[in-house]
Amino acid sequence: MSKTNPGNFFEDFSVGQVIEHATPRTVTEGDRALYGAIYPTRFAIPSSAQFAASVGLDPHPVEDLVAFHVAFGKTVPDVSLNAVANLGYAECRFHRPVVPGDTLRTRSEVIGLKQNSNGRTGVVYVRSTATNQRDEVALDWVRWVMVHKADPDAPAPETVVPEVADAVAAADLVVPAGLDFSAYDDVAAGSPYRLGDYAVGERIDHVDGVTISEAEHMMATRLWQNTAKVHFNTEARPDGRRLVYGGHVISLARALSFNGLANAQLVAAINAGSHVAPAFADDTVYAWSEVLETAELDAPGVGALRLRLVATKGRDESMTLRGDDGKYAPGVLLDLDLWVLVPR
Amino acid sequence: MSKTNPGNFFEDFSVGQVIEHATPRTVTEGDRALYGAIYPTRFAIPSSAQFAASVGLDPHPVEDLVAFHVAFGKTVPDVSLNAVANLGYAECRFHRPVVPGDTLRTRSEVIGLKQNSNGRTGVVYVRSTATNQRDEVALDWVRWVMVHKADPDAPAPETVVPEVADAVAAADLVVPAGLDFSAYDDVAAGSPYRLGDYAVGERIDHVDGVTISEAEHMMATRLWQNTAKVHFNTEARPDGRRLVYGGHVISLARALSFNGLANAQLVAAINAGSHVAPAFADDTVYAWSEVLETAELDAPGVGALRLRLVATKGRDESMTLRGDDGKYAPGVLLDLDLWVLVPR
Amino acid sequence: MSKTNPGNFFEDFSVGQVIEHATPRTVTEGDRALYGAIYPTRFAIPSSAQFAASVGLDPHPVEDLVAFHVAFGKTVPDVSLNAVANLGYAECRFHRPVVPGDTLRTRSEVIGLKQNSNGRTGVVYVRSTATNQRDEVALDWVRWVMVHKADPDAPAPETVVPEVADAVAAADLVVPAGLDFSAYDDVAAGSPYRLGDYAVGERIDHVDGVTISEAEHMMATRLWQNTAKVHFNTEARPDGRRLVYGGHVISLARALSFNGLANAQLVAAINAGSHVAPAFADDTVYAWSEVLETAELDAPGVGALRLRLVATKGRDESMTLRGDDGKYAPGVLLDLDLWVLVPR
Repeated sequence: MSKTNPGNFFEDFSVGQVIEHATPRTVTEGDRALYGAIYPTRFAIPSSAQFAASVGLDPHPVEDLVAFHVAFGKTVPDVSLNAVANLGYAECRFHRPVVPGDTLRTRSEVIGLKQNSNGRTGVVYVRSTATNQRDEVALDWVRWVMVHKADPDAPAPETVVPEVADAVAAADLVVPAGLDFSAYDDVAAGSPYRLGDYAVGERIDHVDGVTISEAEHMMATRLWQNTAKVHFNTEARPDGRRLVYGGHVISLARALSFNGLANAQLVAAINAGSHVAPAFADDTVYAWSEVLETAELDAPGVGALRLRLVATKGRDESMTLRGDDGKYAPGVLLDLDLWVLVPR
Repeated sequence: MSKTNPGNFFEDFSVGQVIEHATPRTVTEGDRALYGAIYPTRFAIPSSAQFAASVGLDPHPVEDLVAFHVAFGKTVPDVSLNAVANLGYAECRFHRPVVPGDTLRTRSEVIGLKQNSNGRTGVVYVRSTATNQRDEVALDWVRWVMVHKADPDAPAPETVVPEVADAVAAADLVVPAGLDFSAYDDVAAGSPYRLGDYAVGERIDHVDGVTISEAEHMMATRLWQNTAKVHFNTEARPDGRRLVYGGHVISLARALSFNGLANAQLVAAINAGSHVAPAFADDTVYAWSEVLETAELDAPGVGALRLRLVATKGRDESMTLRGDDGKYAPGVLLDLDLWVLVPR
Repeated sequence: MSKTNPGNFFEDFSVGQVIEHATPRTVTEGDRALYGAIYPTRFAIPSSAQFAASVGLDPHPVEDLVAFHVAFGKTVPDVSLNAVANLGYAECRFHRPVVPGDTLRTRSEVIGLKQNSNGRTGVVYVRSTATNQRDEVALDWVRWVMVHKADPDAPAPETVVPEVADAVAAADLVVPAGLDFSAYDDVAAGSPYRLGDYAVGERIDHVDGVTISEAEHMMATRLWQNTAKVHFNTEARPDGRRLVYGGHVISLARALSFNGLANAQLVAAINAGSHVAPAFADDTVYAWSEVLETAELDAPGVGALRLRLVATKGRDESMTLRGDDGKYAPGVLLDLDLWVLVPR
């Protein structure tokens, strides 16, 4: 019998099943440096231990998205190795910052199944939870993916479609223990704009663009131990191109958003996300944001912005999400709905 | 007189000569992260400090091959700067895990010399030993390289060809102090297959492939302070191509072998190795393994597998090492014979 | 009003103005590893904590140029985002080694302004000072850049051109506290050549070349949080090429200079520097040095070499800086005047 991992097919999943994912992973200062080498991030908390300590975060957290990518990567061999497409995310909450030395594990529970009418694929819904070496929750999220069946004649499971929130409610956001923005240093952070300076409906063109290189997206994706073949192997797709991991585009957009959102220091939640179009090396990625909601939180000086963060191939100064036909505008790569923490 | 290093030529070596190589090198968490960004490694011990501690290894070791590459790189300026070819390895044993903060130095003794009949080159045999900052041996190995003569008229030295073992005997493998696999966590490690599940003669196709990029192989090779010009300089070879460092292919194959050998946690020895064909950027590397020998070792729950690890350009599902003519099959890049430690 | 950073234009600067640059940055072991992956550096002090401690430097400093790039990168968004050209450096002194855990901030004072006769641009002179988390000076330097005016009709400021030294005097070099080369290990460092072995006027061809890749120069430049668009975005220049950050060429040349200057352990000062021609991916960079001055310093066993370090595209064994017409020879990329500390 083969000792290699074939991944799970649609008929291998059952509602209520719990999967303990392999490969616990210790986060280090090396991850911080590589993240900064691959993405143009300049947010003051992950950049400076001194700044982080000045707002109550000591030891020095890494970018929230480092934790997201590491935790997400664990699920790929079991959940999405045979995926047709990553369909969506919801209810992703960051419960505590991850610091160098933390070891993350991820566990997933199957919370929904729905076979497609073609009989050859189905949608699998999982709630995944990443915990640290003290069994504290670092982050959790729901994701749903379309997965191949190995045997088209395998019987369809009972359809269970879980209810997921359109967005995490502001009241349900977790503020990191000790976070205190009351002595926040705007100059060091690089922007005078605080919660009250952002208005719902406001759009911000983040101006800068980054051209993707093959080595960079592969190094990032490998760092997260993501094993999907299409990112690494020119022989895995008929067109011979390596598909950029969707999370790479998320991190590029988040880092580019510094220019206009420099005080959006921490990601508190990802409410929803669509990878609208694939990205490839030599594409130049830009980003724009729309303010969807604002909230004051129950921590000193802390507020939250709910943003639509859009990554585009080529710059779209008009910041158009959808055309008159309701479809995504050409060039849109990513449509991400997230909560970030800002000083108020 | 020139102050740059011309390297040693064949006539510069003498049997019994000891060379203290320059550039001691401290290993850090940055090396771990870069190794993980460049190679798709997922072995649980180097990935997770918590897992490593659970099997008795604390502080957290880096990949054994990090130590190998660093230690090997030190020898290049003195031993192989004027090499025609790296001919072989033998008797490479890993004596203790290397952890962040360890500083490695390498010393080589010339143990054999044999001028070739063409009078223009010769084979140099060295035994190299890498020690840490406490003068403890981290690893040692024998290697032989074909080296140019600077002066074809220099007299041939007396021929001395050292005897080297075909393979390190299982009884001579060094188990890291404290290693204890009696509470080994198969789920975290990613595989239920232990020593007894592998049979001599069994072959495992590791399935996955990785396409090499120029930046990645150069960054890896430079990280090990390997100075061979052909890896970095398009003007160093008539064809204008940068040759991929042979050790890069070793690490790619080792990392790919996770899929089928996830419990092959540590490398205990390298018995022999041939770089059968050169690799270049845009090649897609795959790997397969053959089980050559199995052994129970004198440490709790610890066994050893002796493997032939073969890297190929393009996937060879037939796992053919040699054709009917006895020559290596087309596509074979690397033929490596190594011992790995596994739970039993 | 736009929340993105438009950078400063010539008319936005005034003599005496002090700019506190954003984004304090903590240096880590990850920076050391990435620096070693991107540049072929082998100087024993940054390579080995044990060697560094043996010459009095404990904790283990990173390369001086890591500090330079990080500190310089901070100034880009405020000083040179709208620059036409970086015209020069002077009086750059390294006051103390930077070690992992140090957080660097940079502050600049405008010390000169001179509008160009075309009325559309002007030269801005700044003195920048990088301090650590204890408010100790890590390094300081003067630089002047040609910057666009936003409004050509803005009135010209009074012309102030500061006096800058042609070179830092040997007596003004800062030797790191505790540095002691009296038990210096030539073998570990990789060269027997000490202060007295170098003669003023001597030129050294550093022999080796490195071909630049896009991913490597972008990762390096991003690591320093340098935000100049031309380095990252193929859509930022009419020719669709990404310009290599000048500091990348400085670090390449410095690392290549190991071969001939292995004992040039620390950079004490940068006296002057010209980025003579742009560099692009696929260029192969070589370096040569000329000894300009030698000095004994007031620390045990410590001397200094003042060097002209020249980077070229393609190797120039003739080591020609300028042609008969007084212009830089074809192929010269960088002409850097610096002081390095060596054992005597």
